[in-house]
Order: sequence, then C-alpha cells, then structure tokens
Amino acid sequence: MRKVAVAGVGMTKFGVSEKSQVEMFAEAAMEAIITSSLKPKDIQALFVGNVLGDFEEGQMNIAPFCAAEIGLGPAVPATRVEGACASASVAIREAFIWVASGFYDIVLVGGTERAMAMGTPLATRTFAMGTDSRYEEFAGITFPGAFAMVARLYSVKYGIPLEKLKERMALVAVKNHKNGVKNPLAQFRKEITVETVLNSAMVADPLQLFDCCPFSDGAAALVLTTEEIAKKLVEKPVYILGVGQGSNGPLCRQKDVTRIRAREEAAQQAYKMAGLTPKDIDVCELHDCFTIAEIVASEGLGFFDFGKGSEAVEKGETQIGGRIPINPSGGLKAKGHPIGATGAAQAYEIVKQLRGECGERQVEGAKIGMTDTLGGDLATVVNIIYGI
Amino acid sequence: MRKVAVAGVGMTKFGVSEKSQVEMFAEAAMEAIITSSLKPKDIQALFVGNVLGDFEEGQMNIAPFCAAEIGLGPAVPATRVEGACASASVAIREAFIWVASGFYDIVLVGGTERAMAMGTPLATRTFAMGTDSRYEEFAGITFPGAFAMVARLYSVKYGIPLEKLKERMALVAVKNHKNGVKNPLAQFRKEITVETVLNSAMVADPLQLFDCCPFSDGAAALVLTTEEIAKKLVEKPVYILGVGQGSNGPLCRQKDVTRIRAREEAAQQAYKMAGLTPKDIDVCELHDCFTIAEIVASEGLGFFDFGKGSEAVEKGETQIGGRIPINPSGGLKAKGHPIGATGAAQAYEIVKQLRGECGERQVEGAKIGMTDTLGGDLATVVNIIYGI
Repeated sequence: MRKVAVAGVGMTKFGVSEKSQVEMFAEAAMEAIITSSLKPKDIQALFVGNVLGDFEEGQMNIAPFCAAEIGLGPAVPATRVEGACASASVAIREAFIWVASGFYDIVLVGGTERAMAMGTPLATRTFAMGTDSRYEEFAGITFPGAFAMVARLYSVKYGIPLEKLKERMALVAVKNHKNGVKNPLAQFRKEITVETVLNSAMVADPLQLFDCCPFSDGAAALVLTTEEIAKKLVEKPVYILGVGQGSNGPLCRQKDVTRIRAREEAAQQAYKMAGLTPKDIDVCELHDCFTIAEIVASEGLGFFDFGKGSEAVEKGETQIGGRIPINPSGGLKAKGHPIGATGAAQAYEIVKQLRGECGERQVEGAKIGMTDTLGGDLATVVNIIYGI
Repeated sequence: MRKVAVAGVGMTKFGVSEKSQVEMFAEAAMEAIITSSLKPKDIQALFVGNVLGDFEEGQMNIAPFCAAEIGLGPAVPATRVEGACASASVAIREAFIWVASGFYDIVLVGGTERAMAMGTPLATRTFAMGTDSRYEEFAGITFPGAFAMVARLYSVKYGIPLEKLKERMALVAVKNHKNGVKNPLAQFRKEITVETVLNSAMVADPLQLFDCCPFSDGAAALVLTTEEIAKKLVEKPVYILGVGQGSNGPLCRQKDVTRIRAREEAAQQAYKMAGLTPKDIDVCELHDCFTIAEIVASEGLGFFDFGKGSEAVEKGETQIGGRIPINPSGGLKAKGHPIGATGAAQAYEIVKQLRGECGERQVEGAKIGMTDTLGGDLATVVNIIYGI
C-alpha cells in the first residue's frame, strides 16, 4: 500500500448559501485543486459525500454533476457515498484506498449539503431518516431525542448529577463558540456563556438549543495523491496515517448508548494502521452534533477514561492550549454542520492545523491530528489520522 | 493487485415485496454468504447500493442497518453508495478495489430497493431526480422523456424510419420477455408479441408502455474474495477480470445522446483491464431500462457498429443462441428493475451463466460475461467483465 497525501484543501463559508449543492462543491473543489498546483484535467476520480440532495434540491446521483461542473471528463468515475452525517469521511476513506492501492494517483474527494435552506421543520424530519425506519423513526425519535437519552444515561451511569453535567455540557458549547470566533469560515462567530446555554430553549430535555449544532449549507474538498507526487506539488503535504470505519445497528440493539461501539472499533482500526495511540494525537476535530456527543466522543477516542470526559472539559483540557485541543475550528456547534460536507470540513481544519496555517486558533506544534465523524444515531463512525 | 473472485451470489424474486429494503437485502445476502460456504462473521466489509430508501421508507444510511440485520459486528464498515440505477454496480466496483488492494479478503456487496411499493406516480417523480435538478428536472423531463429523445435522434441520425425503428425496439421487448419466462426470479414471466408493444399505451412518444421496464422491489448480493480463498470455498469461482466507470454531466452538455460517452469510457476501461475486446464477450446483461436503451448500449459496448444495433436485434443476433446473447435473464424489461439492486442482479445472472446453472436460459459454453449499468440520464455507467 502506498502512502497517501493530502495535497490541497478547499472549503466554502458555512451558513446560508444561495448556491446549489453542485455550485458549492465546485467552489470548494476548485480551491483544493488550485492549492494543490493542479488543474481539473489532472483529477482521475471523484468521491462526493451528500445526504439529502434529493429532499433539498430534487437531486440524486449528484456526483457526476459535481464532476461536470468543474470540467472533469467522461473517463472520470464520480461516486456519491452516503453515511448520514459521516458521508464525507466515508468518501475520504474510499478515495484513500484507490490511491493507496496504486489504482489512481490523484483523486478529488469532498462533500456538499444545503441543509439550512430546507428550514428547520423539514430538516428535522428528514435528518430523522438516519435513525432506523422500522424501530425508531416510527416511534417519533429525532437526533436531539437520541442524544438526550445519551446524556441522561451518562448522568446516571457515572453518578454525575444532571445539573452538574448540564453545566459541563454548556462549557463544550462555550469553548466551541470561542474557537469559532477565530475561524473566518465558521457559521457562528460570537462568544457565548454558560448562561446563554442554560437559558436557551429546551429542545429535548436535557438538551437545550445551545447544546445543539445548527443546520448549515456548505462544502469542503481535498485532493489526495501519493507521497511522491505531493512532494513535487506542494510545500507541506499532509499524510493520511490511518483510517477506520465501524457500524452499529439500530439503537434498540445497543447495550449502552454512552459507549458507541462503532467508534471504538473505527478508532482502534485507525490507531492500529497509524501505529499510534490516543496520546500521540495533538489536535482533534470530532463530531459535536450535541455537546454530550463531544464528551462521549472524547472518551470513545481514548483521550479520557470513560466517565471522565465532562470533567476534562471543566478543567480546560480540550481547549486550544489544553492537553488535547478538540474542535479548534469551532466544531459542528459553531463552524456549522452541512451534514454531507462535515467530514471534509474536519479534514480541512486538521490539514490547516498541521500546516500551521490557523492563525489565532492554531494549535502550536501540532504534528498529528485526527478526525471523528458520526453518522446516524450511532450507526456509522469514521476516524482518520493525519500527520506531517 | 490481487485477482478478485465471486464466491457466492444471492437474489430475491423481483416484483412486489412486503419485506422492507433491509429485510430483502438480508435475504439475498444470506444466500450469497451460505452459497459461498461462509458465515456472516467472515464478512469484513459491506457495500450496499440503494437509491430512494429515504423516499420509499424514510431510511437513509441504510448500510449499517443491512449489516446489523445479518449479524455483522461493529468492526465491519458498511457503506451505501448511490449512482441512481447504477448504484449496485458502483458498489461492486468499490468492493472490488478493497479486495484487489489486499486490504480485505472477504467483502459482501449488493443492492436493495422497494420501488414498486411507492406506486407509479411517486416513483416517476422521484426517479426524475436522477436528471439534473437545475436544467432538466425543472423543465419537466422524466426518464421516458429522455430516452424518447434518444430514439427520435437515433431514427434521424441513422436514417431508420421511426416506424421501422419502433418495430425493432419492440423486438427487444419480445426477446427479453421470452427470456424472462425462463427465469424463476423474474417479475414478468409471460411472452409478448410485437403487437403487444405497438398496441400498448403511449408513454413518451415513440416509447410505449412495453418499451419501458417496470418499477420493482428486490435485492441481490455477491461475496467477493481472493482467488486463493475462493478456490478453497467453492467449486466454480467466477473472477472479475475488468471494471470501468464513467460519468456524464447534464444532458444539455451532451453533443449526441445516441452515443453515451460515460459508457464508451467505462467499457474501454473494463476491456483494457481485462485485456479483452467486445468479440470475447459470450454473454451480456445490459441496461435495457427502455428498448432503445438496449440498442444504444449494444453499440456503445462495441458489439455492433453505431447505427447497426436495431438491425442486429431483427436478425436475432442478441437472442440466446445468437452471436452475442443479451439479457438472458429477461433484463430490466422482464426480470424487473429495483433500481439500487439492478447492478447486483446483473452480476448474479452473469455468475450463474458462467457457472452453467441457468437451465433453459443457459448460454451454452459461456466463459466471459459482461454487465452494463446506467445511472441517471446517461450520467453514470459502470461496466464489469467476469470470467471463469
């Protein structure tokens, strides 16, 4: 297997866009191609993460239209993958194997989504289709409902009073908003306080409005290539050191929703391939779709013992400058969450961090970074470890 | 790259099903696993083609639920790909690279769809989302409309009077229905005549009802593994000799819709990898979503000169026993077309043909077979060549 490098990355501003999903993808893709010192004609294959293009714009099979928009020719295979919110990370892992295997030398991969344009009611209903349609969606569960159950069980299991846990969860939102202020592409660039969170509307008890990430429009993309080619193209290639992907069945088959088995398996695969352990990770972009989701992810990835993640937030260990900076980009919470694009946006941030290009939100000396993307209600997790 | 083998295959009956998409997938998958002399615990990764699971059942991210249904554990990555009607063939090509590269030894791949359960009006509207949402769907085009344009241009371009072309198109339907009678899993098992076609309701002039394939429910699956493992597991492994995938942009950017560039590129890739030419193919399952689609596909794959495909049908060259038997399974026309499953069903037929297990519809002495799957209005084509 060949060593796979990220040559260039691109990303739109997250928030509300008047562009179509194909146009947003093209914007991010052209930035990735140009900053890789390449032209569209150099791209040999394309992978696109997209979740609700059909509901949003009546557009399925979006990948060949993305390809045509940036002028890729008919010999270039263009493939859409969908793993709910993890779609773009699934796409990156697919793109990785085609380069690692020696089949292609230069592959474009990314994600695009127009979730905000749908409006909250339709977005909530369509997002809920990521749950099991036979046992869960049917019963009325939504993602805030699923993660509210995670928070309640977490409180009971680890003996952390709910009020205490809610304060610590609020600190996740406070941190991520603070980071988002420093990210020019973030959807929300305004600091908040613990009180902002605790005084916000109740969504699914105990999750309040500011415990939840927003719906967003946006796109992000990466160019993957070989080590040899990347070194010729760009000054600072970033390498993919390990990848992992795990799967869960329906929630009702999970023994303990505070332990996401798909993540534990995915992370182990990625660490094993990279020959690294959690303590080697300098910076992490993880799936904070809800504040409690960041806490359980930080444990599932091995940064903290199970049950200790919320305490670590309180101690500031996940801030920029802390022991393991988490979501310096602002995360899904403040940067935004255009579902099919999120994994590529996490990769964008890690690549920029490892290149030392993050300005005010730079994690000093970061050499190894990790992304964590969760799709569905704990159903799909992809972890990717990047290094310089 | 390692040689990739198909160990076992499975398929549900096509038609109307009361099972969910996940349950249909499980039925096909378990047949593929069992006939491979394997157990679910042996499967290392899963790829699923599915197109409209969200519209049909409110189910997105269907792959991990398919995995859980057959008892695959959390370490097994489960990935959904969507390339409109070509979805399952895109999935097979993805599964192929993971085995060919040496990353996994045993991968399950297939497709599932419940298109008939939606009813024709909703199915027609949602299928139309495979066209470009900005330039085509918006203007009211549907798939019958797109292929009606192909037929009209074909008539003019090659100087074949429309009435003559319609008779030859009808012969495609007659042949595929005749083959379907011999396929116990086919949706339609009744012979028709040229008059049946020409007297049927007009759908999109010149395409009449019997020029069009049906909406269907169904699933199909394959187990891919290495040559070495396959030889230990089964008596007659079938090998993947070549794969290819091409992409087109919107119809409005196509110079000539009777020549599908994505197919010409995909076929060339597959022939090149296999070291074969069109005359080496003994049997072909190709994308006859409409009768005219079979004719243009037979030319695009190189079996006949451009403009000569309809004449070849008239001469019986595409019948079982003819020069190049096309769609011995009954094709999409008679076997049925559960969109996300179709590519896997084509593979099922070719594998059975190469093993000599097709009874009355057996193409005698078939050693090399090919599948051709078209997604969207000419947007995605995947070609795969199988051999023994």
